[in-house]
Amino acid sequence: MKVSIIAIGDELLIGQVIDTNSGEIARQIGPHGWEVNDVQVIADNATEIRRAVDRAFQLSDVVLTTGGLGPTKDDITKLTMCDIFGGEMRLDPATLESVKEVVGRRGISLNSLTADQAIVPTSCRVIQNRVGTAPIMWFERDGGKKVLVSMPGVPFETRQMFAEAVLPMLLDRFPSKEVVLHTNTIVAGMTESEVAIALAPIEDAFPPELHLAYLPKPALIRLRLDAHGTDRDKLQSLIDEATSKIRQRLAGHILSTGDRTIGEITLDTFRELGLTLATAESCTGGNIAHTITAIPGSSEYFKGSVVAYSNEVKRNLLEVKAETLDSFGAVSEQVALQMAEGVAKAISSDCAIATSGIAGPGGAVAGKPVGTVCIAVKTPKTTTTVTRHFPGSRDRVIDRATTEGLIMLLLALRQDR
Amino acid sequence: MKVSIIAIGDELLIGQVIDTNSGEIARQIGPHGWEVNDVQVIADNATEIRRAVDRAFQLSDVVLTTGGLGPTKDDITKLTMCDIFGGEMRLDPATLESVKEVVGRRGISLNSLTADQAIVPTSCRVIQNRVGTAPIMWFERDGGKKVLVSMPGVPFETRQMFAEAVLPMLLDRFPSKEVVLHTNTIVAGMTESEVAIALAPIEDAFPPELHLAYLPKPALIRLRLDAHGTDRDKLQSLIDEATSKIRQRLAGHILSTGDRTIGEITLDTFRELGLTLATAESCTGGNIAHTITAIPGSSEYFKGSVVAYSNEVKRNLLEVKAETLDSFGAVSEQVALQMAEGVAKAISSDCAIATSGIAGPGGAVAGKPVGTVCIAVKTPKTTTTVTRHFPGSRDRVIDRATTEGLIMLLLALRQDR
Repeated sequence: MKVSIIAIGDELLIGQVIDTNSGEIARQIGPHGWEVNDVQVIADNATEIRRAVDRAFQLSDVVLTTGGLGPTKDDITKLTMCDIFGGEMRLDPATLESVKEVVGRRGISLNSLTADQAIVPTSCRVIQNRVGTAPIMWFERDGGKKVLVSMPGVPFETRQMFAEAVLPMLLDRFPSKEVVLHTNTIVAGMTESEVAIALAPIEDAFPPELHLAYLPKPALIRLRLDAHGTDRDKLQSLIDEATSKIRQRLAGHILSTGDRTIGEITLDTFRELGLTLATAESCTGGNIAHTITAIPGSSEYFKGSVVAYSNEVKRNLLEVKAETLDSFGAVSEQVALQMAEGVAKAISSDCAIATSGIAGPGGAVAGKPVGTVCIAVKTPKTTTTVTRHFPGSRDRVIDRATTEGLIMLLLALRQDR
Repeated sequence: MKVSIIAIGDELLIGQVIDTNSGEIARQIGPHGWEVNDVQVIADNATEIRRAVDRAFQLSDVVLTTGGLGPTKDDITKLTMCDIFGGEMRLDPATLESVKEVVGRRGISLNSLTADQAIVPTSCRVIQNRVGTAPIMWFERDGGKKVLVSMPGVPFETRQMFAEAVLPMLLDRFPSKEVVLHTNTIVAGMTESEVAIALAPIEDAFPPELHLAYLPKPALIRLRLDAHGTDRDKLQSLIDEATSKIRQRLAGHILSTGDRTIGEITLDTFRELGLTLATAESCTGGNIAHTITAIPGSSEYFKGSVVAYSNEVKRNLLEVKAETLDSFGAVSEQVALQMAEGVAKAISSDCAIATSGIAGPGGAVAGKPVGTVCIAVKTPKTTTTVTRHFPGSRDRVIDRATTEGLIMLLLALRQDR
């Protein structure tokens, strides 16, 4: 089954908010063999909404909209849906109860604007929103052959309510025979072109059910192999065979064989090895610790971090020697190494990652342009240091240094075995 | 001038990558009075690309596409554009030089797939991509009255090349008389409905040129006031008058009067006060430090952080007393307070923020469900502690605790004055 999504909101078109709901919906429907045909991002404007709904129904039998359901004047999705699907706006007592409950749980009182959230078109079936005040509305046309569901724009509300209410209802209404299987392989230490050349003979021999996509990220490449069809067993054997060939060709460069983030791969590795980790961060400013601790379970191996933004902190908490700072400067492999050793000692961890660099846009010194980052990693057996020059903005330098630090550590642990 | 954007890529539709390019383009064109009409997100599929281009040209004279220009088999944008705009695919020597230069700067050798990036439709004018290997292609139709520019999907390439090459060329081709002015006001400590009710009398009296949008974020609300028209002076006076009324109504709840992130507001405040800051983070795991250090200039006031994920680190580096941990547990206001005082002492900072909580999904204990976070803030004059219960996933709890900690500190500094 194919789905069209319409994301509604002026804030999306002026670039103040990014539409993350469409991706969330796509990830939830994928395992059921459902796919997103297209996404339209449009303004809070009745004409645009009408036009988008028309276009969406030309492509898909299921249309999902997000956004434009807030209590304020700029939100007009609900009224426009009433125009499109007919009926009139009327207060729905069950919805009012639901709104009261949500508001009550937040410890705030119900005002008139929030109460108006319970006024809905008579042409819709309301799906009560357990986690927000905007009702979710299920509309039908062509005798129920086509369905439009209007959901809120607030990401966590859509994520939760789509999973627990909307998706089950859709699967019930449109039982599907399509099957889509995926596998992921995460590769480090090769460029996208190098991977493509290595895999060309395999890709050229793919049957029509298989499709390989390259998703390059800083410092790593995610390969996604899809199989589309109706015969699950056949697809599974096709995908298994192709995956095994791909992994043979890229052996030594494979960091993970699941759809795992770098934080998750680090968790998997440390769980397997039973080691502990600490970080000492200057230019990454806590982002390595954040990347690690964003993953549930990280407290099993991650003990902590010292973000040493000033030299004083490098000296006092990490025991970096004043003469090393004076001779080589804070941005040096020598200082990064002492930071890694210092944090492992201060926090009693088996392993450590340390960064010191110039994230920019200011701060460049002679011989050390913006983007220069020194990274040190310590494992129980070895220490490694490197100096890298990352292009781009402050954000990018921080992200790259974070990913590279984690990859360096993972590769060092692999070599220790 | 209105622009339509087409974001091309299977990875966008299955939710593995989020389209951030459209928002970037919107933010760059906004100050010139240009607006995004709509965004279409579509698959790497020739039929879909053709259909999207047709639809986009129905709405807009300028169409921008991003993505699908990589060197691998799944990228077919370039060939499809050649079908749509005519001509044939031919190696462009100037583009080959540019590709060689980019590849050389990255210290990797040119392989055949990368060299193929220089094969472009003869119907386009190539804009050399200084920061990547995918050429940017400028196509025209209807005697130059309509323009399509095909750009890469890699966010930093599009951000940089759109700013320095594509946008200037577009502004030159389509000189504009439209003016759009914005102001932003960031409000904390009120719900969206409370703000809407407070501002209703002002909004009701708005002239047609003005539009107020509410952008609620966890713990704060961003109000964006837009003025659209052609007479810049008139718009400026309309927007000044309305802004001043809005700010009078919300006085005491206004955190910033610019479009500033919470990290930027913190920088502004500490710059003004000449104070220094440190953080001691347990459940936020370095995210407060990361939020602060993501902003250029943060090294002026931010000295560092101790991410104390284990109790051992809380005791050894932050001097949290063992008996406090035993009596009240790590997740307690008492421990958060000692962490704040401990980090201010260890790092010699004037101010501190400390967090200790249960980000989930595991870790709940009796009386302390997932989402419980104790926050302490220390200023030169006062200390404040609070216990909050945040709903939602691990990410949300970490984000909310980060924002609340920073807002608590900013409000405490305001009260100190």
